[in-house]
Amino acid sequence: MSSRRQITGFSNPTVKYLRACAKHRKAAGKFLAEGLRLLTDAREMGHIPELLAMATARDPHPLLDALQADVLAAGGEVIEMGAELLAKVTGKDNPQAVCAVYAEFDTSLAALDRSKAKIWLVAQALRDPGNLGTMLRTGDAVGAGGLILIDDCADPFSVEAVRASMGAVFTQKVAQARWDEFLPWLRAGQGQLVAASLRDAVPYRGAPYQAPCFILVGNESRGLPEDYELACDLRVTMPMKGRADSLNAAVAGAVLAYEVLAVLDSSNLSKT
Amino acid sequence: MSSRRQITGFSNPTVKYLRACAKHRKAAGKFLAEGLRLLTDAREMGHIPELLAMATARDPHPLLDALQADVLAAGGEVIEMGAELLAKVTGKDNPQAVCAVYAEFDTSLAALDRSKAKIWLVAQALRDPGNLGTMLRTGDAVGAGGLILIDDCADPFSVEAVRASMGAVFTQKVAQARWDEFLPWLRAGQGQLVAASLRDAVPYRGAPYQAPCFILVGNESRGLPEDYELACDLRVTMPMKGRADSLNAAVAGAVLAYEVLAVLDSSNLSKT
Repeated sequence: MSSRRQITGFSNPTVKYLRACAKHRKAAGKFLAEGLRLLTDAREMGHIPELLAMATARDPHPLLDALQADVLAAGGEVIEMGAELLAKVTGKDNPQAVCAVYAEFDTSLAALDRSKAKIWLVAQALRDPGNLGTMLRTGDAVGAGGLILIDDCADPFSVEAVRASMGAVFTQKVAQARWDEFLPWLRAGQGQLVAASLRDAVPYRGAPYQAPCFILVGNESRGLPEDYELACDLRVTMPMKGRADSLNAAVAGAVLAYEVLAVLDSSNLSKT
Repeated sequence: MSSRRQITGFSNPTVKYLRACAKHRKAAGKFLAEGLRLLTDAREMGHIPELLAMATARDPHPLLDALQADVLAAGGEVIEMGAELLAKVTGKDNPQAVCAVYAEFDTSLAALDRSKAKIWLVAQALRDPGNLGTMLRTGDAVGAGGLILIDDCADPFSVEAVRASMGAVFTQKVAQARWDEFLPWLRAGQGQLVAASLRDAVPYRGAPYQAPCFILVGNESRGLPEDYELACDLRVTMPMKGRADSLNAAVAGAVLAYEVLAVLDSSNLSKT
């Protein structure tokens, strides 16, 4: 079997496999990412896909050539298919001309090194893959180490989450754990657990954040369980000037993360 | 015809009408909102729906009774239908037991009173209805006056945007305008136009924001056109510590809006 093939039929096993990866069926342990920019980011972070699928009619690009070469050198497969077929794989109206299959990463807490970053994002029962991907993207922007997913969250390797992460799924660590695994892990080392809350909380602006700071965000509709909030080292409130009593989960995490970044950076400055 | 009816068939004209409103077909000038909490928020803001649709099997609730009474008193219609039929109306897996049809609001710039708020959000070519609704929700939280949609944005009255706004579509003003209408309108009165930018920009933290401050956010993939950026009174940069060079549009707007709020509030304090 050649490592470069052309595919034309929708019922082709490789097309079925790609669709399964797009849905990230757990059994496969693989996930799909789309777009030359994202795939190039992944490559520069050392992630070479096992399978690269390209539209037959596409604009030539040196980065795509480099990616192909790396895939073939690593023993992977490169396939070509019509744009229509590729669109069906990813289920997107406006498909990218290239997508690729990666092996899922290790998402155990044991794989995290908390000393690597001053900020870590933590989400509890986050259900929306778009919010999850957005949190990864925000984590990349604030220099976070990664995103820890507590309890029953959306799938970080679903095509929607990968898409919303804009490549940050390759730069941020992702861990998945139950609360009763996470809390002992956290307490076994340094780490300040912070949540936005209305309960016995201080203003979020200029609060005494400490690195490594773990910013905990709750479920989109229910927020955090009471005992999770009470387990936090610091509870902060954000201004809510209108009728609503909460922000979108990814937005709340981002506003808080940027505040933590500013406070930690200024406390570094004042020490020098 | 009674103003209270029971509906059982999917082909019923009222069901078709509800589905059209969910998609916010412009010709109808109507839009659909779901959920008792959101509908109650709307009611408390003085918005009574023209049509209220409820699942036949639902939990009784005094707020739902109050809503029904208001709809009937205002000459509107109340209908009941099976939960399955209601789910088909809104196209959501986990449907709310109640939804309602409202007349679209006036979205002309002329309907805005800029003196009513210190912060206004402005989005250019924002394509994702979830981002749009999230910006409305953030606007409510920071006490913004409303959201101005520039050029070809997603539909603020689509069911996705209304859903993501969590009711803020009823508390925030929404305006729609072309750039060449917006800029003269802005310049005809007080107003500082601010955008996140890499061009000749100052750090966003503690920047000299002035009320009324108009926070401009660009398209999800292309950002702002160069000439739009150049027309701004203030360009600010946010830290980007990772590989990505931008944030999700709704996240960028929120981080900036909370910073503007903090700066404006502290400058008020220093004046007194």
